Amino acid sequence: MDLVTLLAESEAKILFVIADGLGGIDSEGRGTELEAARTPNLDRLARQGATGLTYPVAPGITPGSGPGHLALFGYDPVEHNIGRGVLTALGIDFDLEPGDVAARGNFCTLDTNGEVTDRRAGRIDSRECARLVKMLSDIRLDDTEIFVEPVKEHRFLLVLRNKKGAISAGVDDTDPHRTGTPPREPRARDEKSQKTADAVSEFLAQAREILTEEQQANMVLLRGFAQLPDLASLQDSYGLNGCALAGYPMYRGIARLLGMKVVDCGPDLDSEIDALQSAWPHHDFLFLHFKDTDSRGEDGDFDGKVAAIEELDRAIPRMMELQPEVIVVTGDHSTPSAMGGHSWHPVPVLIHANTCRVDAVEVFGETACAGGGLGHLPAKHLITLALAHAGRLRKYGA
Amino acid sequence: MDLVTLLAESEAKILFVIADGLGGIDSEGRGTELEAARTPNLDRLARQGATGLTYPVAPGITPGSGPGHLALFGYDPVEHNIGRGVLTALGIDFDLEPGDVAARGNFCTLDTNGEVTDRRAGRIDSRECARLVKMLSDIRLDDTEIFVEPVKEHRFLLVLRNKKGAISAGVDDTDPHRTGTPPREPRARDEKSQKTADAVSEFLAQAREILTEEQQANMVLLRGFAQLPDLASLQDSYGLNGCALAGYPMYRGIARLLGMKVVDCGPDLDSEIDALQSAWPHHDFLFLHFKDTDSRGEDGDFDGKVAAIEELDRAIPRMMELQPEVIVVTGDHSTPSAMGGHSWHPVPVLIHANTCRVDAVEVFGETACAGGGLGHLPAKHLITLALAHAGRLRKYGA
Repeated sequence: MDLVTLLAESEAKILFVIADGLGGIDSEGRGTELEAARTPNLDRLARQGATGLTYPVAPGITPGSGPGHLALFGYDPVEHNIGRGVLTALGIDFDLEPGDVAARGNFCTLDTNGEVTDRRAGRIDSRECARLVKMLSDIRLDDTEIFVEPVKEHRFLLVLRNKKGAISAGVDDTDPHRTGTPPREPRARDEKSQKTADAVSEFLAQAREILTEEQQANMVLLRGFAQLPDLASLQDSYGLNGCALAGYPMYRGIARLLGMKVVDCGPDLDSEIDALQSAWPHHDFLFLHFKDTDSRGEDGDFDGKVAAIEELDRAIPRMMELQPEVIVVTGDHSTPSAMGGHSWHPVPVLIHANTCRVDAVEVFGETACAGGGLGHLPAKHLITLALAHAGRLRKYGA
Repeated sequence: MDLVTLLAESEAKILFVIADGLGGIDSEGRGTELEAARTPNLDRLARQGATGLTYPVAPGITPGSGPGHLALFGYDPVEHNIGRGVLTALGIDFDLEPGDVAARGNFCTLDTNGEVTDRRAGRIDSRECARLVKMLSDIRLDDTEIFVEPVKEHRFLLVLRNKKGAISAGVDDTDPHRTGTPPREPRARDEKSQKTADAVSEFLAQAREILTEEQQANMVLLRGFAQLPDLASLQDSYGLNGCALAGYPMYRGIARLLGMKVVDCGPDLDSEIDALQSAWPHHDFLFLHFKDTDSRGEDGDFDGKVAAIEELDRAIPRMMELQPEVIVVTGDHSTPSAMGGHSWHPVPVLIHANTCRVDAVEVFGETACAGGGLGHLPAKHLITLALAHAGRLRKYGA
């Protein structure tokens, strides 16, 4: 079914509030983080709206941030994937051009036999990373422009831009993903990626030379060679003039990939809501990204995640003052603090609109949402549901 | 998405306890068989774990044992099917070779016009079947080796093994599936199955000759011509070193098809659990099959099925002594005793693991599981969920 053929004209605005890593598990006998938090405003939305649980990718699959967000915006995250190299570029606001090949780099430690002893070079700090990146920036290749950018700790970004035409990203990781073995060769997986593999080989040879005197970080490992994916814009897919309010570069980058306007705002919720208010008249789809829920979950900080959720809850009235016809509150995946990382557990979701079929759920929490009126559904259907509740979809078939 | 690329090293063990035909309906005003049974151990697992309902094939579709089990092991039962002939062979431990064509046979009764009057020859008993099969075993064909094996009552197995190379199984049933009409011709559905059809025709001509003096069983009907399916092993699909504990041949056969080690054990639960204990250190995926729930359901014996479920419940503590990191308890389909056969009703499932998101469900039963945290999901996702809960899957995408 081609959704575009069903799109209707409407002035109704849709607000997506994405609390990164929202879902959790009960590890302390007081419910999940969302259940332990005091959330009167979210509970009211849940009570007046419809709730459920979403699978970002599929049951049992733990999503990265790329797949998690693509699903929220209605793009099948298995059909479309954003490679690690591209996500790394998006994450530092590097302006990738179509055709660029990006890879995620690690500084690593090799022993005198050339075998990897530490894949992260002792997690050198970001200043040390910047110093080493500066040295690598001197590398010059014949036909290929090279960009090396520091990311954080031992991580950096490598971008290859061919001056003479298209190159491809079908190159194997050089990261062997274990120690006690040398880095792998950057093998081309197809003929059209051979030029890229050759350029990478040359880059690595020069990098080895440049880093040879270093004690900790005497080599680099590369993985996730990728190019910008070819994604239809939110406008073309759903007729939505989108705007992203996000404090972190990666989420801004994903939004930009989908043709949304990206407002640069501080990483704190207040700045995001200020920006939301300013952007409100000019857009019909607004995506507000809240990072702290994921960060505290990654830290393994149950109480910290509870506090982040409560902060979000306190901000809900400011958002509701804007009177969105449809508001969706959910996450891009779960990050239970007991696990200190992303997980596969389905994500609680609420939709609030005049056209909701209100269900029996009285509070916003995983246990309650498991019995909600939206059921358990792939996250990629949320955008269709939002369009429907906004009166933006016509009947399918006669 | 290729699940193999996400597999992580882990020592965690997964135990699948499959109570055949577990699901039921409430036909006596005291809940389903599972709900009427006293199951303190299963209830505890449900209370401490996550529950839901599974569709083995699709809503409304009643699965046979083949599709039901393929789904449990994560193989799409529509994409992959095990033909009736092959299942019949597996069910009597016949050692099918790749390339063999197997069919399910019925002895039947023809009248003097050659029309079928009884498709099951009055359900002759198994001894009579063995006597007739022995007669048919004398049949010899030119290029094709013939195996005829008794199954039960009027049913037998026919296997064709070509001595000179590959044959195909695209041959129509000769069983007309109704009386008052002659058996059908074994028509080849494609050119490469013509050799098989010719061999079957010759077999049938000789069978008719041999059986001509019989009163009841004077002919045979064949259906479900099939060859061993080409299925990736559990090891190749999921990195699991599997072991099957099953008292009945068909389930052993399906497990063997998927490359699991099959332990021959008695059909009683005690023998199976003895075998489970012995196999435990050597495998990371253990499949224990319990048949009685289905058998009593097929008998239409509500109380018998309740008793079988209670027997399984009493055995749970012995299984939990092995301390599986993940235990899944479910069925391959429903067999409501009120219906005396398989049904389409979704099957209750529980997963118990440290990494579960515990839901509100307090007892293991269909009504409670309908509101469980796993939702209602295709059974083929259970293996992915089990892998996730065992820490055997890495994140998808960056």
